[in-house]
Amino acid sequence: MVTIWYGGDYNPEQWPRETWDEDVRLMQRGGISIATVGVFSWARLEPRPGEYDFAWLDEVLDGLHAGGIRVDLATATASPPPWLARLHPETLPVTEHGVRLEVGSRQQYCPSSPVYREHARRLVERVVERYAQHPALELWHVNNEYGCHVSHCYCEVSAAAFRAWLAARYGSVEELNRAWGTAFWSQAYASFDEIEPPRAAPTFRNPTHLLDFDRFSSDELLACYLSEVEVIRAASRVPITTNFMGFFKPVDYWKWAPHVDIVSDDTYPDPADPLSPAYASMVRDLMRSLGGGAPWLLMEQSPSAVNWRAQNAAKAPGQMRAWSYQSVARGADGILFFQWRQSKAGSEKFHSGMLPHGGTDTRVWREIEQLGGELQRLSGPEAGVEGSRVPSSVAIAFDWDSWWAIEQPASPTTVSYLETLFAWHHALTSLGLAVDFVRAEADLSAYRLVVAPAHFVATDAQVGNLAAFADAGGTLVVGFGTAITDEHLHVRLGGYLGEPLRRALGVWIEEFAPPAAADLRAIGGGAAPAVALDGEVFGGATTGSVWAEFVRVEEAETLATFGDGALAGWPAVTRRATGHGSAWYVATLPDPGALGRLAERAAREAGIELPSPVASGGQVEAVRRGGSVFVINHGADDAVLRLDGTDRLTGAAASGMTLPPQGVAVIALPVSDGENGASG
Amino acid sequence: MVTIWYGGDYNPEQWPRETWDEDVRLMQRGGISIATVGVFSWARLEPRPGEYDFAWLDEVLDGLHAGGIRVDLATATASPPPWLARLHPETLPVTEHGVRLEVGSRQQYCPSSPVYREHARRLVERVVERYAQHPALELWHVNNEYGCHVSHCYCEVSAAAFRAWLAARYGSVEELNRAWGTAFWSQAYASFDEIEPPRAAPTFRNPTHLLDFDRFSSDELLACYLSEVEVIRAASRVPITTNFMGFFKPVDYWKWAPHVDIVSDDTYPDPADPLSPAYASMVRDLMRSLGGGAPWLLMEQSPSAVNWRAQNAAKAPGQMRAWSYQSVARGADGILFFQWRQSKAGSEKFHSGMLPHGGTDTRVWREIEQLGGELQRLSGPEAGVEGSRVPSSVAIAFDWDSWWAIEQPASPTTVSYLETLFAWHHALTSLGLAVDFVRAEADLSAYRLVVAPAHFVATDAQVGNLAAFADAGGTLVVGFGTAITDEHLHVRLGGYLGEPLRRALGVWIEEFAPPAAADLRAIGGGAAPAVALDGEVFGGATTGSVWAEFVRVEEAETLATFGDGALAGWPAVTRRATGHGSAWYVATLPDPGALGRLAERAAREAGIELPSPVASGGQVEAVRRGGSVFVINHGADDAVLRLDGTDRLTGAAASGMTLPPQGVAVIALPVSDGENGASG
Amino acid sequence: MVTIWYGGDYNPEQWPRETWDEDVRLMQRGGISIATVGVFSWARLEPRPGEYDFAWLDEVLDGLHAGGIRVDLATATASPPPWLARLHPETLPVTEHGVRLEVGSRQQYCPSSPVYREHARRLVERVVERYAQHPALELWHVNNEYGCHVSHCYCEVSAAAFRAWLAARYGSVEELNRAWGTAFWSQAYASFDEIEPPRAAPTFRNPTHLLDFDRFSSDELLACYLSEVEVIRAASRVPITTNFMGFFKPVDYWKWAPHVDIVSDDTYPDPADPLSPAYASMVRDLMRSLGGGAPWLLMEQSPSAVNWRAQNAAKAPGQMRAWSYQSVARGADGILFFQWRQSKAGSEKFHSGMLPHGGTDTRVWREIEQLGGELQRLSGPEAGVEGSRVPSSVAIAFDWDSWWAIEQPASPTTVSYLETLFAWHHALTSLGLAVDFVRAEADLSAYRLVVAPAHFVATDAQVGNLAAFADAGGTLVVGFGTAITDEHLHVRLGGYLGEPLRRALGVWIEEFAPPAAADLRAIGGGAAPAVALDGEVFGGATTGSVWAEFVRVEEAETLATFGDGALAGWPAVTRRATGHGSAWYVATLPDPGALGRLAERAAREAGIELPSPVASGGQVEAVRRGGSVFVINHGADDAVLRLDGTDRLTGAAASGMTLPPQGVAVIALPVSDGENGASG
Repeated sequence: MVTIWYGGDYNPEQWPRETWDEDVRLMQRGGISIATVGVFSWARLEPRPGEYDFAWLDEVLDGLHAGGIRVDLATATASPPPWLARLHPETLPVTEHGVRLEVGSRQQYCPSSPVYREHARRLVERVVERYAQHPALELWHVNNEYGCHVSHCYCEVSAAAFRAWLAARYGSVEELNRAWGTAFWSQAYASFDEIEPPRAAPTFRNPTHLLDFDRFSSDELLACYLSEVEVIRAASRVPITTNFMGFFKPVDYWKWAPHVDIVSDDTYPDPADPLSPAYASMVRDLMRSLGGGAPWLLMEQSPSAVNWRAQNAAKAPGQMRAWSYQSVARGADGILFFQWRQSKAGSEKFHSGMLPHGGTDTRVWREIEQLGGELQRLSGPEAGVEGSRVPSSVAIAFDWDSWWAIEQPASPTTVSYLETLFAWHHALTSLGLAVDFVRAEADLSAYRLVVAPAHFVATDAQVGNLAAFADAGGTLVVGFGTAITDEHLHVRLGGYLGEPLRRALGVWIEEFAPPAAADLRAIGGGAAPAVALDGEVFGGATTGSVWAEFVRVEEAETLATFGDGALAGWPAVTRRATGHGSAWYVATLPDPGALGRLAERAAREAGIELPSPVASGGQVEAVRRGGSVFVINHGADDAVLRLDGTDRLTGAAASGMTLPPQGVAVIALPVSDGENGASG
Repeated sequence: MVTIWYGGDYNPEQWPRETWDEDVRLMQRGGISIATVGVFSWARLEPRPGEYDFAWLDEVLDGLHAGGIRVDLATATASPPPWLARLHPETLPVTEHGVRLEVGSRQQYCPSSPVYREHARRLVERVVERYAQHPALELWHVNNEYGCHVSHCYCEVSAAAFRAWLAARYGSVEELNRAWGTAFWSQAYASFDEIEPPRAAPTFRNPTHLLDFDRFSSDELLACYLSEVEVIRAASRVPITTNFMGFFKPVDYWKWAPHVDIVSDDTYPDPADPLSPAYASMVRDLMRSLGGGAPWLLMEQSPSAVNWRAQNAAKAPGQMRAWSYQSVARGADGILFFQWRQSKAGSEKFHSGMLPHGGTDTRVWREIEQLGGELQRLSGPEAGVEGSRVPSSVAIAFDWDSWWAIEQPASPTTVSYLETLFAWHHALTSLGLAVDFVRAEADLSAYRLVVAPAHFVATDAQVGNLAAFADAGGTLVVGFGTAITDEHLHVRLGGYLGEPLRRALGVWIEEFAPPAAADLRAIGGGAAPAVALDGEVFGGATTGSVWAEFVRVEEAETLATFGDGALAGWPAVTRRATGHGSAWYVATLPDPGALGRLAERAAREAGIELPSPVASGGQVEAVRRGGSVFVINHGADDAVLRLDGTDRLTGAAASGMTLPPQGVAVIALPVSDGENGASG
Repeated sequence: MVTIWYGGDYNPEQWPRETWDEDVRLMQRGGISIATVGVFSWARLEPRPGEYDFAWLDEVLDGLHAGGIRVDLATATASPPPWLARLHPETLPVTEHGVRLEVGSRQQYCPSSPVYREHARRLVERVVERYAQHPALELWHVNNEYGCHVSHCYCEVSAAAFRAWLAARYGSVEELNRAWGTAFWSQAYASFDEIEPPRAAPTFRNPTHLLDFDRFSSDELLACYLSEVEVIRAASRVPITTNFMGFFKPVDYWKWAPHVDIVSDDTYPDPADPLSPAYASMVRDLMRSLGGGAPWLLMEQSPSAVNWRAQNAAKAPGQMRAWSYQSVARGADGILFFQWRQSKAGSEKFHSGMLPHGGTDTRVWREIEQLGGELQRLSGPEAGVEGSRVPSSVAIAFDWDSWWAIEQPASPTTVSYLETLFAWHHALTSLGLAVDFVRAEADLSAYRLVVAPAHFVATDAQVGNLAAFADAGGTLVVGFGTAITDEHLHVRLGGYLGEPLRRALGVWIEEFAPPAAADLRAIGGGAAPAVALDGEVFGGATTGSVWAEFVRVEEAETLATFGDGALAGWPAVTRRATGHGSAWYVATLPDPGALGRLAERAAREAGIELPSPVASGGQVEAVRRGGSVFVINHGADDAVLRLDGTDRLTGAAASGMTLPPQGVAVIALPVSDGENGASG
């Protein structure tokens, strides 16, 4: 890219014409370089079926262009006008309990509806025809946050599409019956015609039916996206994106990522949650990983508070800036917001805007202006930020299939897949390491350490690939809950894990024994049930939670043991040298401190040099990107930097520099200093 | 009125004929002067469509009349017989999720149904025709607790009525689109025909759509009421009421009150809640205020336990009497119960009755009898209770629009409007002041102090009226969350509050920053997130909750500041002299003690003389009505009175008199002593 | 029976043919004597309507027979194939909110559906025709866990059946109106045609309507069962069972038990709950009682973890064995499991199996094998276990009507009927007593002590029978909440309890005053509201919970009083000598220790000799059955036996023998030693 983009969603149709000029003037003043236009404009662009009105949008784009603002132009298909539902009620989505959702909010369409898709395509054709050559056009923005409210539809139209999807996947109903295990509970289907979406049923629905419906639903949304992309590609070479939503469970972004020209993301961490910076860092790392390490765009964040939580904390002074730099540090080439001018009416009027209700004499506006100026100065070849990459030698295996499956209700226990990923990501990044996410079947040769936590569903290819990574010299850490089933949710018999992994790890799993409490409230609130652990690898006695099991060692070193009841003395962490590398197994979720020590031990064994701390005091995140180290203080106290180099933002010498809370420094480094993307 | 009415709902159709004579005899013994008859008699009066049976009711009314018991005669339309739903299934109401509610409990009608209304009118015509001249008739009782179970109906019939209501309100769909802000999220309607009730939708529904549906739903119930009133008025000059339900969110009683000849109320405070007397006092004050200060009727309370809570505490000995006197003190001219004789079957058989399952050898009956005798002795011109008023110089602005809107899900934070009102009411009444509720656009000239807490939705007229009150010499206290939007929920830009209020207060609001916690359970349980406060007006350091904001002072005195994080040092309470009066702004909800001190300071500034305590010890409520001060001890310890005067109940001298827990005294005062309605 | 049966559900259709031979071999190795076959085989047996395939089942049964394994053959009707719903969508059940439940889990049929019943009968005819003479057949297993997911259906078909059931019960709609108390809330029905199932309604539905729908729903399931039984009986003399589910609220097993040839039960206590052994003992006692004391079968338990809780604890080593012996001790003649071979796919693949995923080199399999061997050695005339009975002189009255009614939402307070039963059962069994459950109208002459806790619904016959038991010399203890209504839920006026009980007890109830808290969360979590109690019978001051009331003593001894607020000094426990016996009343639920002392006092008064402790240390359950005392240590510490005799399992002398945690001994006793079934 040519700059670090800066901007936000711009919805001029909410405002009278006279504000549009002020918008452009203030955008210029604020350093805005790009505006996302038209996301919710369908009803304005096509107020009646087939009756189009583009004049206003012409004026908007021309005005932006005249002001030097580039445009991320939406296809405007995210929220159909009311008339679509009135003409075609069957386009409205239906819940698993049979409730047809109404017009009156947004995204009220069945993703499988050919009627919706056809109307959307027609609109996109008109939009592309009119604006493909517009000089302000920088990026196409297809639809918006696919599936954020309606990811699964259970209507008759969806049912027919699901049957077609299944027929394509399985070829014959016999093969489907085998894959779904319908011999159990007398569920065998005599033909595809008998199959419906997994609507409300008397009790636990067939797990593979549920999983396939998750896959289908993600695929149907992707098909909506591709249907629009096809129209655009036919007439335009401008790059295309659609905004992802971080770790969004219903949509498998691994399958989507190859189809976007640049990954973009909407993320709204809770300012009231002290863990937000850590969680958000995981999201940024996923976005970078989805694009194979290429730069991505932060398409939406909030300037201050949102309005859809039960309590909506304002961002603290400096927090918006600090979190913006976190994205840049972790690979973003643009910082955009929802939305430019805070709405006066509608469902998001209390969602903060770059230009607040209170106008420009506000701290929010001043912070917007400040950051805009800084990013302009940080752009360009000298700083070398945009376009650069974040080097990493550590990866975490992550997949939607496992997420969908391990959180199904008939699983061994209640596991949050995301919290489990987070525990590992946080342990590793706390060591100062940059972490990528990968698919378990990907080429892992670039990494020295790969962790596979709770990778519940694993194909033979994945199981083999992980084992081969260790054999080839990598350090593989397998967490509990991994490779318990194949892609059809058929249990891997004889000790789970699958043969190549069992061999590499030198262990097999005899039985699950998750810590449990009689009182279900122990899950929702209070203390979760825990299990005692002991081992030098943890630094001594500690506890674990979520999961535990009877691990049988065939040929491995036991690094830690359970210390409780029936499990007392059984292995909790094992390690085995395999081929040129090593394979570790961790049979529970150790407490954060203990997990950190375990991660450190594994990283050292992998030959990864752990960076020295870049600061004393504060709560500092440090990430290397290109020729800079981004240092951000998320803590409540000052941090004092220990780095050599110069701060690109202030020109000050880094060493001894004080970073206040929410403070940021971008330290210019000598070329090729160290190999890990992060330090701290 | 000619007496303090005493009685209850009387449902003789549940009992064999032989109990009816005993009923009248025991009513006489218990001092009962009025009985509400026929509330749930439709199925008995019209067992088949158009087939009427009034003979039994003739006998009941004649028997009551012979026994000297007056009758509050219900129109019997509250619960249609099963045959109505079977003949006209479309009269059954439908939930927002599309569930059509069945026969089998009560109130199963769509308020917009012309079929229901027509059948109800036909029944009322017959009832009025037959009993308008009956000598026992004292009052007409229209329907029952309108909307208590079915306030909003989402069926097709309601949809059509809603569209008609919208067309009448907005004239054109363009105007509706403007008012609802449908430019956001692509919601623009091409015609009224496209609009439905706000049924279940993918996400947050349009806020103005929701608010208008609340208004419409209240209006439809009012139309049901007026449809019956019209029939009665045509044939009878006997006064008409319908029983309100205190602060009942779905029904805007301000709009209803002009249409009842006397306000009446059903209230069931929880005997297990130590705050019940304080909450109930707020309800009594609302009832008095709805009638413009005129006497009202306590139409329903329970003699002891109810049966619809998860746990149903019995009233403690004396508690029913003490709470009854609270109503009289605060303007009630009658004390009635649900119900006379405790049912033997059905859904309310474990709801206590004046005549319990156990008969007359019970403490409940003895307390009923005692109170009946006392109220008879307290009636009449000498005591001067019935018909008299409760003087007040303090008012709290209250409106249903604000209640509906501020509790919508897309608001800045989770606010309980009622709890916020209560905090202020309790702070003021704890100073011994009588408090009225008013609409913000009402004539406020009778008051010295007006508080507007969380008055979220404010018309220009309201904003102007409040500012004018301060300018004219009043003391105006504006609480957080006030005048954020106009009546269409359009944000008042440029700092909220609206120009006249901003000017009067000398402040504007830059940004909301409600205290928040990452853990949502902090709202449901545990401690709510709080914010530090400091200021002499609070008596020093304290905390606030619910709300906080960045207040910008243009010209005002800062009386207290926030002491926390980003808000540290920002104003929390301001005051400005304006015109002949003053205007205060309070940007959070201070803790009760601190709010009490703030209220005291404002009251003193308003020139209100705070009454001296009427008692030492106990937990005493004291209210002046007419020529008496009612003193009630809600505490667990004795109170000793410090008042001069004589107790009308016992004839004892007030000074030094001991009031035990639940004790009551009605102290006769010299004429024109003090001006406030309450003291304590 | 000829042996203590040992086995489990066997679902060979989930596995390839080659595993079947291994299954038989491993069953033999594990000591398995019986297999339940075909429970979920409908879709396999009749893959298309009227197209049957029995060849595979022939082979399975022949193989089992050849291996010496007996067969409990299911009628396979528990889960219809998908085609039934596609051909006859009206067979799918409907919830009270109108949601029609789909195919995809199991049990998706309306119990009233004649179409379902007819298809089921046709299948049973074929199964019986084919296998009635099969030499492996030991038992018929009708359907499976009737009602476990769909107990109440609200569809139109069910509605018609409900109307027919009501017409049969009441004869005329007038009688129904009287019984249901429809005079209240204007609910009178003009004809049966107007009545529907109690679907979602605006508020509390008619309580008798609800209760009759519970009765109807249980009866409809029973009709399904009997419809199959009729087919079997016509062609086979092999005994018939269907598996009950312990205290399963929707089904009245008292009405079912006469129709099964042997009672069988599915029970899954939570291994994570330390109270599970005590709760499970109550279930075992019910099963024995349903069969009038005859031996029963534990038809299903889990070898280790289940998979349907939020957290699924594994059974501790030895726990499965210990709990199995608990069933044998309390009357079981067979120990069976779900399921033989742990599934590889489907909704229960993480439910443990006798043969786990890990195969035979697992502790689960070793424990299965061990127990199989032991039970073989314990079978036969010498040990005298199978076929023998558990003598008892104590009974607890229990009925589904009371369970259904007291937990309805419009009851005096929130009561768990089962927890109340459990409190009494646990108090009595902790004294070492064997306890039966009885219907209150049964012949009670075999018992010395009968407890009637919360027997809310009581017919005149029941009330009279309980009083007569006391008059005849028994000790009757009546708990709160008893005989408040008759069978129509009409309140027993004049003090509840009904005349004969009031007379026998010498008390009447003036008013309920359950302990209550303003905060509803006090019920869900935290401490439940309590009431103070005092009395020597409790060993002094203590507390009670759930319920309290104003008890009026006419002629009785007060053994304990309430000590709180309004109830202070009122009787909490009374006792009256009546006829040749005595009658006690207990007006609250005392804390466990206090209830234990009260139970001990009542047992002693009843002339029951309390057994001496059989062990010191541990947490020992001891039950006499036939000529043995079964001793089980559920605690975490060793227990040392104090019994004379010899352990049938080890041949060791009992006295001084150490029982480790989960340890079991079966002590052979001299004939006719003591009369109570349990000691401890």
